[in-house]
Amino acid sequence: MISGRTTLIAHLGYPTESFRAPMIYNPWFEECGIDAVVMPMGVKAEDYAAFLRPLFRLSNIRGALVTMPHKVATIGLVDEVSTAAAIAGSANAILLREDGSLLADMFDGEGFVRGMRRKGRDPRGARALVVGAGGVGSAIAASLAGAGVGALGLFDIDGHSAAALADRLARHYPALEVAVGQRDPAGYDVVVNATPLGMKPGDPLPVDVARLGPDCFVGEVVLTQEITPFLAAARERGCAVQVGTDMLFEQIPAYLEFFGFPSTTAEKLRQVARIRY
Amino acid sequence: MISGRTTLIAHLGYPTESFRAPMIYNPWFEECGIDAVVMPMGVKAEDYAAFLRPLFRLSNIRGALVTMPHKVATIGLVDEVSTAAAIAGSANAILLREDGSLLADMFDGEGFVRGMRRKGRDPRGARALVVGAGGVGSAIAASLAGAGVGALGLFDIDGHSAAALADRLARHYPALEVAVGQRDPAGYDVVVNATPLGMKPGDPLPVDVARLGPDCFVGEVVLTQEITPFLAAARERGCAVQVGTDMLFEQIPAYLEFFGFPSTTAEKLRQVARIRY
Repeated sequence: MISGRTTLIAHLGYPTESFRAPMIYNPWFEECGIDAVVMPMGVKAEDYAAFLRPLFRLSNIRGALVTMPHKVATIGLVDEVSTAAAIAGSANAILLREDGSLLADMFDGEGFVRGMRRKGRDPRGARALVVGAGGVGSAIAASLAGAGVGALGLFDIDGHSAAALADRLARHYPALEVAVGQRDPAGYDVVVNATPLGMKPGDPLPVDVARLGPDCFVGEVVLTQEITPFLAAARERGCAVQVGTDMLFEQIPAYLEFFGFPSTTAEKLRQVARIRY
Repeated sequence: MISGRTTLIAHLGYPTESFRAPMIYNPWFEECGIDAVVMPMGVKAEDYAAFLRPLFRLSNIRGALVTMPHKVATIGLVDEVSTAAAIAGSANAILLREDGSLLADMFDGEGFVRGMRRKGRDPRGARALVVGAGGVGSAIAASLAGAGVGALGLFDIDGHSAAALADRLARHYPALEVAVGQRDPAGYDVVVNATPLGMKPGDPLPVDVARLGPDCFVGEVVLTQEITPFLAAARERGCAVQVGTDMLFEQIPAYLEFFGFPSTTAEKLRQVARIRY
């Protein structure tokens, strides 16, 4: 029940029609008796810079969820960015701090890592291959680095993207062994598809699945279907897999903590959410 | 259920804690299956001008409810103002039109007049006395003029306010007979208290009730109690009365029409509202 005491979490992006977060957060807030609401606000790219600071002058706002097309622009508009957001070069969350300053963070990678851990896989010391060095791939690489992987392989069809990501990682994690430019999954403990491959029927697989080890943990970012052809092939090889929506739901407790709300688990959020995947 | 397709009606004011509109509009929208939500936004006076235009660039906003302390400032920040808002010198609603321009309107007076009509009193040709020439008194005077009263008496302890209101009325309704500076209710068909008198125990009555005619229709803007001492005294004289919350609820159908939503009646809104007065 929205009132004048309700805390506003803005959901900033454009177009808004496909937003899922309101149907995840708001039923959860209601379930827990938390007087807060996620409100979609359709902000076009050209309007974002002029809107952001006035928005955060509101007396009842706590933060924002940030989505397309503002994830990259956010980095340049806030007062401080987390390490994960700095490496990813993009952010999907903004917190208004007590002193009025804005902190941006990026939770896609955190969602991936939390999901891994809850499936019993500790990233610490593991060898991980991230295929796709765009926003989400960069975020996953950053979080895997933060979680202590022993070695990281990066591949992108745009070789410059992967090299630039390796440079950003090296600045924050100088001791981490980073290899760039090949996508052979042999010898890796963790392999992640962070490309759009799998969204369209007939897409090639992101890596040669015949070279996946059976103990490899295989993750996916594609959300259009739970078991993509890549995950199906990995399962046939005997690999444990993580679907795209796991990354989505696993990061929401991280968001809740970031905003200062009581945390919960991805499972509980899935049970209460009013949207099915 | 808020989603990415939900239409936003911003509720702009500061502080927000006492906002009532969300508990009136949102249950009504839910009842009717209208996918819209009134969202309180605490905007301080010094932030209002910088926030308003960027807010109305949002792709999913339709309009705003405007309250303290922005009712006067709104007049200077929009593209067009209604006659009622121009005379009142303040606005409590903003509509984003198809062409991106902003229209401001003022519905306090409209609520008063609609309430009168629904109680069987036609303002047309009536002699009306408005005591208090501040924002709400000016709005009531403007709407009574628009509804065709035959003569209007205006009184304010600040004589300049009443004279300035008379000037603004004369510009829009040059044929209307306006008398300024006395508050003797004798001979009036309609008498309105548009001062804060009645909010505090021991306040003097706004007019000499002994001089109210028994057929006089007596209205009140004070919201802190339904039957103020002034209304109680008027009832004892045999007068028909209109309570402050009638003006509030009667203007909401006007707001709904202004925003392009299906209209309804004040009674239905009262039944569904999650707040009691």
